[in-house]
Amino acid sequence: MSTTAERDRAPKQDRSRATRQRLLEAAVACLAEHGWAGSTVSVVAERAGVSRGAAQHHFPTREDLFTAAVEYVAEERSTALRDLFPHGAADRRALLRALVDLYTGPLFRAALQLWVAASNEEQLRGRVTELEARVGRETHRIAVDLLGADESRPGVRETVQGFLDMARGLGLANLLTDDTARRERVVSQWAALLDGALG
Amino acid sequence: MSTTAERDRAPKQDRSRATRQRLLEAAVACLAEHGWAGSTVSVVAERAGVSRGAAQHHFPTREDLFTAAVEYVAEERSTALRDLFPHGAADRRALLRALVDLYTGPLFRAALQLWVAASNEEQLRGRVTELEARVGRETHRIAVDLLGADESRPGVRETVQGFLDMARGLGLANLLTDDTARRERVVSQWAALLDGALG
Repeated sequence: MSTTAERDRAPKQDRSRATRQRLLEAAVACLAEHGWAGSTVSVVAERAGVSRGAAQHHFPTREDLFTAAVEYVAEERSTALRDLFPHGAADRRALLRALVDLYTGPLFRAALQLWVAASNEEQLRGRVTELEARVGRETHRIAVDLLGADESRPGVRETVQGFLDMARGLGLANLLTDDTARRERVVSQWAALLDGALG
Repeated sequence: MSTTAERDRAPKQDRSRATRQRLLEAAVACLAEHGWAGSTVSVVAERAGVSRGAAQHHFPTREDLFTAAVEYVAEERSTALRDLFPHGAADRRALLRALVDLYTGPLFRAALQLWVAASNEEQLRGRVTELEARVGRETHRIAVDLLGADESRPGVRETVQGFLDMARGLGLANLLTDDTARRERVVSQWAALLDGALG
């Protein structure tokens, strides 16, 4: 039995969730384009078409907004990646390419801006360190699952980790120039080497 | 036959070179510690114990100073690496570790700050893009020489490139936390993979 009050509450919660989501997506885009120095709650609120007050209701501080944004988009991307290969990866090369793609788009640019800002700003450092550890563990888990890698075998864990480090380095190489052509060749070659190493 | 003027000139040139070098080293340290936003010519001049006017005599703009600084330190490190393995690398694993070390110290931190700033600042972008391409090519050349890698064989070039991309990713992973223990394991494992791939 639902009262009028309960019926009103549901759409209000939906609207609140939609506002939150718009803010998070605007925050990632803003960070990727303008860096930490150019990313304030006001700029993001305007981009999202939300009042500054509403933005601050959802995220009391600038640090809250931007760490939540990177985490939210990282989760979205993890889910998308799992959906792309629901039964693991029959084509390992396609999967490795998809993993590398996690590091070449706006999410990685945004995370990188936050990461580098955190290296110089004490109030960001602890939170970003914790966030990166969480996102890193989740990406590693997805990679191991989708690759069907057996981490009980010596070296397998480090092989996968090294590949993700390589993906991060490739993301960095794509920051100022379009590195797509070189990246394709590197990923193809290392996919072949990994195939041998993972069996 | 040397005149008095010539004898005077030599020490003056030495002093000028020493001043320049102090400025460049201070600039890299400053960039690594405080990021681009906290790095101005004045801050660097003070750190180097040089007057602001003298600093501007050597480097008319902030962009001149910091791009020259990253380039200078990169060259110093390349020379040091070649000196470390004058006859190529008998111990390939030691060499790979030394290559990865290029990406985990203050030079990489400084370069990363400049790189990320360049992604948001038009007046830096062109110069940093060109600088990174030059430093990247030189690092690749050193890696190929010291590894004794035969790039005429298919895949060898991309194998080495991928390893350097991994090294860059490992540098990023070391930015906020001390990642030494994990990095050692990853590099050991990837050194074994490279050994197999390079023959």
